Amino acid sequence: MKRSLFLLGLLFTCQLFSQTDSEVIRKIYDASLSKGQSYQWLDHLSNQIGSRLSGSLGAEKAVQYTKEELEKLGLDKVWLQPVMVPKWVRGNPEFAYIETAPGKTISVNICALGGSVATPLQGIKANVVEVHSLEELETLGREKIEGKIVFFNRPMDETQINTFNAYGGCVDQRGSGAKEATKFGAVGVIVRSMNLRLDDFPHTGGTNYGDTPINKRIPAAAISTNHAELLSSLLKIDKNVSFYFKQNCQQMADVQSYNVIGEITGREFPKEIIVVGGHLDSWDLGDGSHDDGAGCTQSMDVLRLLKETGIKPKRTIRVVLFMNEENGMRGGNEYAKVAKQKGENHMFALESDSGGFTPRGFSFDCDDASFNQVLNWKPLFEPYLVHYFVKGGSGADIGPLKDGKVVLAGLRP
Amino acid sequence: MKRSLFLLGLLFTCQLFSQTDSEVIRKIYDASLSKGQSYQWLDHLSNQIGSRLSGSLGAEKAVQYTKEELEKLGLDKVWLQPVMVPKWVRGNPEFAYIETAPGKTISVNICALGGSVATPLQGIKANVVEVHSLEELETLGREKIEGKIVFFNRPMDETQINTFNAYGGCVDQRGSGAKEATKFGAVGVIVRSMNLRLDDFPHTGGTNYGDTPINKRIPAAAISTNHAELLSSLLKIDKNVSFYFKQNCQQMADVQSYNVIGEITGREFPKEIIVVGGHLDSWDLGDGSHDDGAGCTQSMDVLRLLKETGIKPKRTIRVVLFMNEENGMRGGNEYAKVAKQKGENHMFALESDSGGFTPRGFSFDCDDASFNQVLNWKPLFEPYLVHYFVKGGSGADIGPLKDGKVVLAGLRP
Repeated sequence: MKRSLFLLGLLFTCQLFSQTDSEVIRKIYDASLSKGQSYQWLDHLSNQIGSRLSGSLGAEKAVQYTKEELEKLGLDKVWLQPVMVPKWVRGNPEFAYIETAPGKTISVNICALGGSVATPLQGIKANVVEVHSLEELETLGREKIEGKIVFFNRPMDETQINTFNAYGGCVDQRGSGAKEATKFGAVGVIVRSMNLRLDDFPHTGGTNYGDTPINKRIPAAAISTNHAELLSSLLKIDKNVSFYFKQNCQQMADVQSYNVIGEITGREFPKEIIVVGGHLDSWDLGDGSHDDGAGCTQSMDVLRLLKETGIKPKRTIRVVLFMNEENGMRGGNEYAKVAKQKGENHMFALESDSGGFTPRGFSFDCDDASFNQVLNWKPLFEPYLVHYFVKGGSGADIGPLKDGKVVLAGLRP
Repeated sequence: MKRSLFLLGLLFTCQLFSQTDSEVIRKIYDASLSKGQSYQWLDHLSNQIGSRLSGSLGAEKAVQYTKEELEKLGLDKVWLQPVMVPKWVRGNPEFAYIETAPGKTISVNICALGGSVATPLQGIKANVVEVHSLEELETLGREKIEGKIVFFNRPMDETQINTFNAYGGCVDQRGSGAKEATKFGAVGVIVRSMNLRLDDFPHTGGTNYGDTPINKRIPAAAISTNHAELLSSLLKIDKNVSFYFKQNCQQMADVQSYNVIGEITGREFPKEIIVVGGHLDSWDLGDGSHDDGAGCTQSMDVLRLLKETGIKPKRTIRVVLFMNEENGMRGGNEYAKVAKQKGENHMFALESDSGGFTPRGFSFDCDDASFNQVLNWKPLFEPYLVHYFVKGGSGADIGPLKDGKVVLAGLRP
């Protein structure tokens, strides 16, 4: 964490100081390593506030807390940007079992996927059809799927060096499984938890019904990897095992929330804006330390470290703590919309939303000329073992800023 | 861990397969990531056996266990190499306090440094002189030190990117503090625990009296960083606070122990030997997972993965689990001595003794020609985010093999 945060700072200062880049970077690194604040902030966000799903009390507290903390830093401006966000609530703990014969049941661990509808009050019990891809639904067709629970069980690829690739290679099952299974008459969807490990803790995350009419939506849940293995084994023995699950999650009316923003105004080019940020909201089942409390507090510390070291940036540096990345992207969209309305000139935006691990580098979403310019700075980072500069994705929240000019980047820990 | 171990394998195969290096590496990576064994072995070493200080029951069990595990792998040869090792025992838990006024005491956490002598039965109580370097003893001179406890309190430099540099910049206080303080008439030595964090857990490690006669040796202990800060603060208020400590550690007679060795004989050049290893012994206050259980089980897995993948190396590949790195280096010295006696031809030796963290690369102790050859292989490793190839140190245990020809290397996580 300590390491991560100042990296965020570095990239900006590179743009700001042409004479003494390496000294400035060293200064920021030293300040961060010896007087970093991001861990303390993260401790509060994670352990005092906890989960921060959009529309929840936790999210409200996090907005208030981070705004107050930014106000203590003596920035030039701190404000809240209003945004309406969806509010989804999990309700009672979910309950599920596999029934191998009448009255013979094995309890399994599931959790409703974010955005899922509830089951009927008495739950759903049905036979199960196991698939390993969305395409397989097509092959099986309505005949084999109708009235059944579809069990998506393609595991993450453990041979991937970049874990996000392993995740990306599986997450379509969770994101679109329910929407697609509905088309073939499925009554529910169970998705193998996005997890490389075999364990008992189902991992939540959003499912997206797209334009499926509300009355056609079917409930979707994640099942722990251990229980996914169990269910798969039992199905190999007997295709007729059935699965029961019950959940009473609910989508409520949208509620008022905010992006939290602070800035140091540029001393030479105040209208040229550099953004660093993460998302303040987090799923309800964890404390959101890695996803994305770390990204938020690292970003806050970028501005604090500039104040701490007395570095006055040429361009405006803005920290943005986006609301609602996890289930709606309302904060990211609103920020970009307002920026466009105001005619703001964003030069660079960096998101940290890959966890609070050791920073290895950045991926850049930009044109070749900009990327080559960035590559010139790579030697400045190598003494800090930051070696990974590639073209690639940036971050969900800053994506809407994309306009063909702005350089978007993602921290890659 | 999973990641680390196969790296060890990689470097060797590079030397072995000129045609299809990248495929071979991919094969080993895949096998390691999906069917690695090192974590399971490490779990046993750490949690079933635990600490493994030379001459202890734990060390004996670890020799037996790893030998048996290697024997299961179908290697061409597995054997124990006898070596006599020192046996130091901590005795009863240490006890210490700061006395700020007669009868007013504050308990503090200390642990005897490995190799230290005991205090007298009733303990030692004396005034304290705080210093920040060995050189400062010289400046202060006998007058200010005689009869006192010397308190070495130079902290690790938290701005170092490589933590080993921060450690290396401080550890002379622990290694030589007692030996040097004796020369000025000190009665005991307290060393700030080698730790970047402020916490309550003193970290042990060896002290070396050199040729100080046994009856002149003074007891030495580490004090937790929190209590080092406290002691320093109290000394700033009152130079006359005194410090009491009591420890009854003891150096016993040498005992029989072993290096554990296994090998796959080379199919083309059996007399050209490549070593991969770590040290099996560990300090008594932890479970030796990082230092250096991880290095041992990674090294074992290098050979297992070659068997698993059906790769038959051209040269002999030998895993060596060295005994007594922590307080005597007897295993490393013995291995090199026997190798020399037998006229064995060691081409390459790699030690993993920097903890079971994400591998970043290797440092190489070799001539420029060999280093340039190694640098040619760097692109083969970059897809695995292994980017750090530098000239530098290797590992303590393989150091004695140095003969001007052999390439020595250390894994750098």
